[in-house]
Amino acid sequence: MDNTAPVILREVGLRDGLQILPRVMPTAQKLQWLRAAHAAGLREVEVGSFVPPRLMPQLADTAEMVAAARDLPGMVASVLVPNLKGALRAIECGAASMLLPLSASHAHSLANLKRTPDEALAELARIRDARDAAGSACRIEIGLSTAFGCTIQGAVPEDEVLRLVQGALDAGAEAVGLADTVGYADPLQVTRLFTAARAIAGERLHCGHFHDTRGLGLANVFAAWQTGIRRFDACVGGIGGCPHAPGASGNVALEDCAYLFASMGVPTGVDFDALIALRGQLAGWLDGEALHGTIARAGLPKTLKAAS
Amino acid sequence: MDNTAPVILREVGLRDGLQILPRVMPTAQKLQWLRAAHAAGLREVEVGSFVPPRLMPQLADTAEMVAAARDLPGMVASVLVPNLKGALRAIECGAASMLLPLSASHAHSLANLKRTPDEALAELARIRDARDAAGSACRIEIGLSTAFGCTIQGAVPEDEVLRLVQGALDAGAEAVGLADTVGYADPLQVTRLFTAARAIAGERLHCGHFHDTRGLGLANVFAAWQTGIRRFDACVGGIGGCPHAPGASGNVALEDCAYLFASMGVPTGVDFDALIALRGQLAGWLDGEALHGTIARAGLPKTLKAAS
Repeated sequence: MDNTAPVILREVGLRDGLQILPRVMPTAQKLQWLRAAHAAGLREVEVGSFVPPRLMPQLADTAEMVAAARDLPGMVASVLVPNLKGALRAIECGAASMLLPLSASHAHSLANLKRTPDEALAELARIRDARDAAGSACRIEIGLSTAFGCTIQGAVPEDEVLRLVQGALDAGAEAVGLADTVGYADPLQVTRLFTAARAIAGERLHCGHFHDTRGLGLANVFAAWQTGIRRFDACVGGIGGCPHAPGASGNVALEDCAYLFASMGVPTGVDFDALIALRGQLAGWLDGEALHGTIARAGLPKTLKAAS
Repeated sequence: MDNTAPVILREVGLRDGLQILPRVMPTAQKLQWLRAAHAAGLREVEVGSFVPPRLMPQLADTAEMVAAARDLPGMVASVLVPNLKGALRAIECGAASMLLPLSASHAHSLANLKRTPDEALAELARIRDARDAAGSACRIEIGLSTAFGCTIQGAVPEDEVLRLVQGALDAGAEAVGLADTVGYADPLQVTRLFTAARAIAGERLHCGHFHDTRGLGLANVFAAWQTGIRRFDACVGGIGGCPHAPGASGNVALEDCAYLFASMGVPTGVDFDALIALRGQLAGWLDGEALHGTIARAGLPKTLKAAS
């Protein structure tokens, strides 16, 4: 395993972070966020979701966000698409990547996506066909949520997670990520499941998505990185939360995740000063929302400052 | 490596946590803390330090704390001793274990202990001789501080850390721990240094001591555990802090550390409800001090509750 290979951090705050907040962030602020993320060295951003605006008014400007991301050199914009209809919009507006959620927990799948996991796989195949028919290069990703447990169902069998990884690849996914949607994962489970999924998907297993609800976010990132994962989702300020755990922190804080890798000598391309400045802006925009993460407060250690 | 072997968590808040706080906690509250820790299943506690009371009035009641700990079935009380004089007091009052600090950073050693690391090793040899002459069974531990970097000196050469591990064993230490005193350690460095130190000390390398100043505390605990370490220092509520990083969190929160192990199926003997109740009491006693940690707020996951 190459411990010096770059790691890609994808900022998912504009989607996963904002979607559970009651407020609607003005598009102008989102665009500032997007451009500041680019200026801070980030090259992958999840900019929104093509869900009906009446269900999620926070993300109604997703097409505009994709267009803005396309103007930023080297930026890869991904969008969440819940179904074929959303996928057609992603293709139409030229998103680089579309992310289809697939719940490993049957209970969560029915509650959140109104379909079983196998019905979601059938939709994935239709999306793949539509994408190919349109001659689009939009990458199809599967985000396998509740892969480490579910607040509704409880435990999720690892065999079922692996069956769905194989199923997603068979149905046309070019990339699969495992997501700890509710902060249930532990580092040994992460090691086990990512290793097994990698044996099935190889390099197509491309992303780890962890929440820091119970303090294990970065330990889980480290465990997944040890198995060879080189791409992680994160949010500046650790926003996101979980509707089932009020007050708990959300996605791993991107700046802390970047620090984890910087501390190990792993390049992420991130400019810490610019990232911390963006975090400060975000605190203003989200006045009243709790931000998480420690590095903004504690600062880089002397050893790292000397090295950079 | 046996992934099911029990892990021992040592509560060090009564010493490492309290010593940097300006307030003096009344002995009656400390005794409640000690007894509640025992009731919550903890069997190792660092109860104080034999330093001159004029320098550290917070810890002036250390002999009383040792006596109280001796009354608790199965409780192992350790005390910090800065020198031979302190060691003689530890022996006299029947502490089970005494911990001598040794700074791997020469600059930190001179600033904090007023001696070079090699002068500290010479003092260790005198302490060993005095302990043996007294026919005492008090275990001599070395806590190798700033082993992962230093806020004064910056980087600390790994060769120097390993030289001091060997030196400590040669001078009579029966146990050696590596401490990230200032929150500089990263998980790869932890893996490297604990593996190398274990090659020298074997089972006498017995403890990891991590601060969570920059969010990597539990990732570092996990990395050290992967190398075979089965004993960790921690503080309920993550108190401790660092005088050089105001507002930053201190020692890893014991309850979060216990959750990390519980999530992996590793027994620690800890009763979460009792531990969270103790944390609540501590919050009252330290009214105004920031407590850290996430599990008290987020609660155990459904999967773990079902298992316990």
